[in-house]
Amino acid sequence: MMKLNADLGESFGHWQATSDQDIMAYIDQANVACGYHAGDPKVLQRTVALVKRHNVSLGAHPSYPDLQGFGRRSMRIPADELIPMIHAQMAIVEGMAKCQNVALEYVKPHGALYNDMMQHAQVFEDVVSAMAEYHQRYPLMIQALANNDFHRQIASHHNIDLIFEAFADRRYTATGYLESRQNPDAVLSSIEALAQARLLIERGEVITDQGKRISIVADSLCVHGDSPDALKMVSQIREILQQQGV
Amino acid sequence: MMKLNADLGESFGHWQATSDQDIMAYIDQANVACGYHAGDPKVLQRTVALVKRHNVSLGAHPSYPDLQGFGRRSMRIPADELIPMIHAQMAIVEGMAKCQNVALEYVKPHGALYNDMMQHAQVFEDVVSAMAEYHQRYPLMIQALANNDFHRQIASHHNIDLIFEAFADRRYTATGYLESRQNPDAVLSSIEALAQARLLIERGEVITDQGKRISIVADSLCVHGDSPDALKMVSQIREILQQQGV
Amino acid sequence: MMKLNADLGESFGHWQATSDQDIMAYIDQANVACGYHAGDPKVLQRTVALVKRHNVSLGAHPSYPDLQGFGRRSMRIPADELIPMIHAQMAIVEGMAKCQNVALEYVKPHGALYNDMMQHAQVFEDVVSAMAEYHQRYPLMIQALANNDFHRQIASHHNIDLIFEAFADRRYTATGYLESRQNPDAVLSSIEALAQARLLIERGEVITDQGKRISIVADSLCVHGDSPDALKMVSQIREILQQQGV
Amino acid sequence: MMKLNADLGESFGHWQATSDQDIMAYIDQANVACGYHAGDPKVLQRTVALVKRHNVSLGAHPSYPDLQGFGRRSMRIPADELIPMIHAQMAIVEGMAKCQNVALEYVKPHGALYNDMMQHAQVFEDVVSAMAEYHQRYPLMIQALANNDFHRQIASHHNIDLIFEAFADRRYTATGYLESRQNPDAVLSSIEALAQARLLIERGEVITDQGKRISIVADSLCVHGDSPDALKMVSQIREILQQQGV
Repeated sequence: MMKLNADLGESFGHWQATSDQDIMAYIDQANVACGYHAGDPKVLQRTVALVKRHNVSLGAHPSYPDLQGFGRRSMRIPADELIPMIHAQMAIVEGMAKCQNVALEYVKPHGALYNDMMQHAQVFEDVVSAMAEYHQRYPLMIQALANNDFHRQIASHHNIDLIFEAFADRRYTATGYLESRQNPDAVLSSIEALAQARLLIERGEVITDQGKRISIVADSLCVHGDSPDALKMVSQIREILQQQGV
Repeated sequence: MMKLNADLGESFGHWQATSDQDIMAYIDQANVACGYHAGDPKVLQRTVALVKRHNVSLGAHPSYPDLQGFGRRSMRIPADELIPMIHAQMAIVEGMAKCQNVALEYVKPHGALYNDMMQHAQVFEDVVSAMAEYHQRYPLMIQALANNDFHRQIASHHNIDLIFEAFADRRYTATGYLESRQNPDAVLSSIEALAQARLLIERGEVITDQGKRISIVADSLCVHGDSPDALKMVSQIREILQQQGV
Repeated sequence: MMKLNADLGESFGHWQATSDQDIMAYIDQANVACGYHAGDPKVLQRTVALVKRHNVSLGAHPSYPDLQGFGRRSMRIPADELIPMIHAQMAIVEGMAKCQNVALEYVKPHGALYNDMMQHAQVFEDVVSAMAEYHQRYPLMIQALANNDFHRQIASHHNIDLIFEAFADRRYTATGYLESRQNPDAVLSSIEALAQARLLIERGEVITDQGKRISIVADSLCVHGDSPDALKMVSQIREILQQQGV
Repeated sequence: MMKLNADLGESFGHWQATSDQDIMAYIDQANVACGYHAGDPKVLQRTVALVKRHNVSLGAHPSYPDLQGFGRRSMRIPADELIPMIHAQMAIVEGMAKCQNVALEYVKPHGALYNDMMQHAQVFEDVVSAMAEYHQRYPLMIQALANNDFHRQIASHHNIDLIFEAFADRRYTATGYLESRQNPDAVLSSIEALAQARLLIERGEVITDQGKRISIVADSLCVHGDSPDALKMVSQIREILQQQGV
């Protein structure tokens, strides 16, 4: 069955995101900030406790080192720097989770690192290398495209499992990439998003910006809990999943 | 037999300390910076490789979060922030070392955190609590004083082993604390330091600033490799240990 | 007439404090974060624009360098490091404000630096020295105590003007210091706070935790706008001031 | 007459670059780090003192915010964030220099920001806009190419003066850009560099990697003082300039 994943633990020091608790009841997988775009050790400790209480799967959410930019600015970082950076972020989540008897289960890059990984073959290879050179093999969550052959090939070569995710509330282009947020219609309305979630869940398909139906086969849907509207949508998507599960 | 320990991995990005390689041949225990006072992920990776090649025992060297101050400025940090900070630093060293099949073996706080731990009972208790609440029990390296009853009691209560270290090149006071660096005679000359190292190794004693002989029973001597003179002294202390070992 | 001052510009990157705009209509002096506890260059630019639009007096709000701790952790920083740190923070506010034709008018230390300055003579002297060694003399805002003779003497010696501030919503002790926030009754109820503001404004007095009336002569009242209740109180204090001004 | 410029103040906290003092006697213009890639307030204060003592022209050397990467990693930063970042760095140097009665005289971007500015029209426009929106107009130092028409046009449109610099020790391509450091012959030998310096100074020309002579008209030569060899070359270039001055 399709899983739901969300980004969590994105507070920092004095600045507290308050929505973590609310979305926990609806999701299966928590992508937890590792301190590079958000998340300090205390926040991380608290987020792991939340993950544990709700029995959600724990993912590390590594980023470029850019607290001020929230990891959303692309940085060109050579592999010999990027790989240890990713290791460091995996290690901090892994070790602190273990203190609460919680196991790290997967890794999903954040923000600009995620985008660069999906756009640039070299960055994807660097990220997969980081996964392969870590002391334990964790699955890597990436974006489900119309065609992920390249990603499957690289990951398979390094013996890394992939988890594919799709987006309920973002408009797709013909290749399965998302329309840029700079376009006014990049983000779907609630009604459209719910319809897209249903189509993804029931058929493994989306309707693109050109009105074509393409296949997007995903293991997980990325959802948000940062507003009452967002939360309501997550609960509605959860209902679709439960009906389907019957 | 008495061990020798040194602080390593204290480069950061562009700024490279070059002495790490040289001292490796002489020491038994490497206290490796965790990123809070020095050490970025690439430096950490390289330092672990050095530790492995020389078959030295790996220690985490956690600090207050103060890169600009090199961890030497005292900060008042409540336990609920300090404990996860120490966990995060242990986790990063532990996880990145594991990627090279190297195991973390002990923890030695750095700089102002070390001093505060030795001066303030509450900070010592917080540090020991951090060790006890971590997912694995590692020994804690602290300063050998004339009387460590308080430290033994707290550590024993939390079931944490202690490693006691002494200093070859610093002048001791009657309590076994070091004379403040602000005093002109706080740092010993090479000849004095070598004599003090010999006395510590052979008798477990030092001669204080008042000329009294007190007992300082240490498991390890802290040494430095940041100058040719410092390195020469370490090699001489190593010779004393080897003669004694015969 | 008594002024009202508030801390502003305390967003950072992704984490946005939303209350800055609301309180602007009520205050006379804005203490603007300089990047050490909060405030990045973009936030600072926007805050200066807000200060200009509302024709409020601009103050720099320098802090210890501690973004994660929001400047609330005491740090022991020697004068030769603290003074350039304060200069750097004044310079950034001064220069960026000048880009919008806004002049810096005063300096109020933030958080732990403020507390340390009020508690430790040496820190106060270091802060006043920083003011005196800056290229332009700005007034320094400090806490109005029952007796500020020491502060007046130091400031006068360095030829620095002082602005004295009082707190509407905090309980005072006999010396004019505030009761620690760790005490359950340290923060006044809205009704108490309004009464205290009135007493401060009309008589220059407060009633201490022991029920005694002491003299607290202040130039400015520190207020907060981070909740609807807080904002309502500020508007009520503003009304008291307006009635008095008639 | 051709000037000599060098990057200075690139220490940070514990990590001290020691060569600043040595090169001062030979240069005319000091590009001083502003804290984003190097340089803390104490370092900045000390560097300004050095600049003053040697009566050298003071430049701000702003960077992307990347201490760990020493400002050498390209970051994609939108104009509404980059412009205040540059302002903040200019303001800190300007204000702290003023404390020692030293005036800021020009701005030269650092590392990846410099490269991006020379490679991408949009980044160049953003940097020039930052200069134009600052409260005072400072000249901007950029690289002298075979053809700087684009740069002249943009700068002129914003009413910003340009200072053109050339490089003694780097191999040029036909367009006047430098050969990438990844090529083994990108950095010239001492003898080649000295010859190139002489050609730049006496004729405003360089010989490219293809052996062609092209015109590179520069106001200033960028030199380094981070090794005894580098320093020796600077002194030899200074001699050429002095002979020419006669």
